[in-house]
Amino acid sequence: MRFASFTTPDGSDTWGAAVDGALYDLGPSGANLADSLKDAIAEGLLDHERISLQTLPAIPERDVAFLPVIPDPAKILCIGVNYKTHREETGRAEVSAPTVFTRFADTLLGHDQPTIRPATTEQFDFEGELAIIIGSPAHKVSEADAWRHIAGMAAFNDFSVRDWQRATTQWTPGKNFPATGAFGPYFVPVADVDDFDGLRLETRVNGETRQSALLGDLIFTVPQLVAHVTGFTALRPGDVIVTGTPGGVGLFSDPPRMLIDGDVVEVEIGELGVLRNVVQQEVA
Amino acid sequence: MRFASFTTPDGSDTWGAAVDGALYDLGPSGANLADSLKDAIAEGLLDHERISLQTLPAIPERDVAFLPVIPDPAKILCIGVNYKTHREETGRAEVSAPTVFTRFADTLLGHDQPTIRPATTEQFDFEGELAIIIGSPAHKVSEADAWRHIAGMAAFNDFSVRDWQRATTQWTPGKNFPATGAFGPYFVPVADVDDFDGLRLETRVNGETRQSALLGDLIFTVPQLVAHVTGFTALRPGDVIVTGTPGGVGLFSDPPRMLIDGDVVEVEIGELGVLRNVVQQEVA
Repeated sequence: MRFASFTTPDGSDTWGAAVDGALYDLGPSGANLADSLKDAIAEGLLDHERISLQTLPAIPERDVAFLPVIPDPAKILCIGVNYKTHREETGRAEVSAPTVFTRFADTLLGHDQPTIRPATTEQFDFEGELAIIIGSPAHKVSEADAWRHIAGMAAFNDFSVRDWQRATTQWTPGKNFPATGAFGPYFVPVADVDDFDGLRLETRVNGETRQSALLGDLIFTVPQLVAHVTGFTALRPGDVIVTGTPGGVGLFSDPPRMLIDGDVVEVEIGELGVLRNVVQQEVA
Repeated sequence: MRFASFTTPDGSDTWGAAVDGALYDLGPSGANLADSLKDAIAEGLLDHERISLQTLPAIPERDVAFLPVIPDPAKILCIGVNYKTHREETGRAEVSAPTVFTRFADTLLGHDQPTIRPATTEQFDFEGELAIIIGSPAHKVSEADAWRHIAGMAAFNDFSVRDWQRATTQWTPGKNFPATGAFGPYFVPVADVDDFDGLRLETRVNGETRQSALLGDLIFTVPQLVAHVTGFTALRPGDVIVTGTPGGVGLFSDPPRMLIDGDVVEVEIGELGVLRNVVQQEVA
């Protein structure tokens, strides 16, 4: 079963199950299983046997506004240069540890919401990625135990403001503009992912495939990322690790191909669904 | 008047005024002016005329546990290489924009609390710094307007785990271990700082002066930092910008001089007071 956070047609922010193009409200405005998807994850309420949708109305997806899968993670840790194809296009050397930077939660946006191309950049770019969502408190976790602390996963687009990212050694500014961290549409529990390594991540701009990789191509695996990150910081349910982007980003295309107003960017990862966002130019 | 966040002798987390070695409880367990120092800042309650301490008991400083000045900032943005003496010792080139990285709030600790030297490092280091605290919502603020959005300032020690910081290009891991962001003891409103540029920042280890600089030596000034940071992210009352460290850190001493268990590190910035923390070795 897949889940999502969304705003109902009458304006309530809630969460629920996503089945066959319809959403079923499991939040306070519906079955009231938990206040939020984050709470449902923390309380371990997402196993199929406990969830009955039979008495709930089906809300067509087209009638809701998707929110970020988790609208308010306390921590979002993003991983850089974690596919060989991307490392090679950036010209960076191999490193012995994952490259980690952060996003603030107020950069997040949902599926089908516009991403904002800032008025102060000439270099707005996409990065299709897999995001994993923490399910139980995790500090100093071993690789062997890592999957037990992961609740599920979702698609992510780490939209990047390249000139601000690359102005100095530290990437924070270029990764923290409002409405640049697209996260969704669906949360898929780990138990519902059949063949993780075989899942294909594909990013399309205006229908043209620009990135294509298997999740099995990750340089640092998901357990390695969890072990590394929890080696220095404690994670809680709803926290997010965004695992990095494969080769094909606009900056390193030849010639570079930056995003402009109206571009449609899609990140698709198998049963995690298609995350679609239109670029909207900010007016200065 | 100076202010602080602290835990009272009977265990209440509160905040109050700090006068002549005593604290006066202005939080819920005392005069109840506001729930927290952050709230008092946001509501503009810190002007001297409105605060009367006459009916409040004086709590000796030695009887309280200091908390971080703001225990829970939503955003902590740290600036790297922002003094010429430190830029030169690192061997880094001049850059046209401030270098920005982030800390999570759960890395903070108060004055006189132990900083934890992680079991997984051989390179634990100090960085004495000035922190500024935002007083009103600030997004896309000009340099000319910047000071109007700043409530006050405090001393900060950006304790750094150098091997984790320098394992890759991004410094996040080395700056986000628990109990490594010392912040205090006092919050001083901007209006109470007489000669900002003339304030001396001094860091001592076991009584030996290791860093000494004037705040006027900052490469990017406080208004420039506020303009840059609010150019990509919106700040709220209680958010913090840590402005960078001068030359003299342990890593670039010749030979390097790293902190070990029991070292006493003090950061003193004029009337902002002395921030003192003892290094405590984590047992693996």
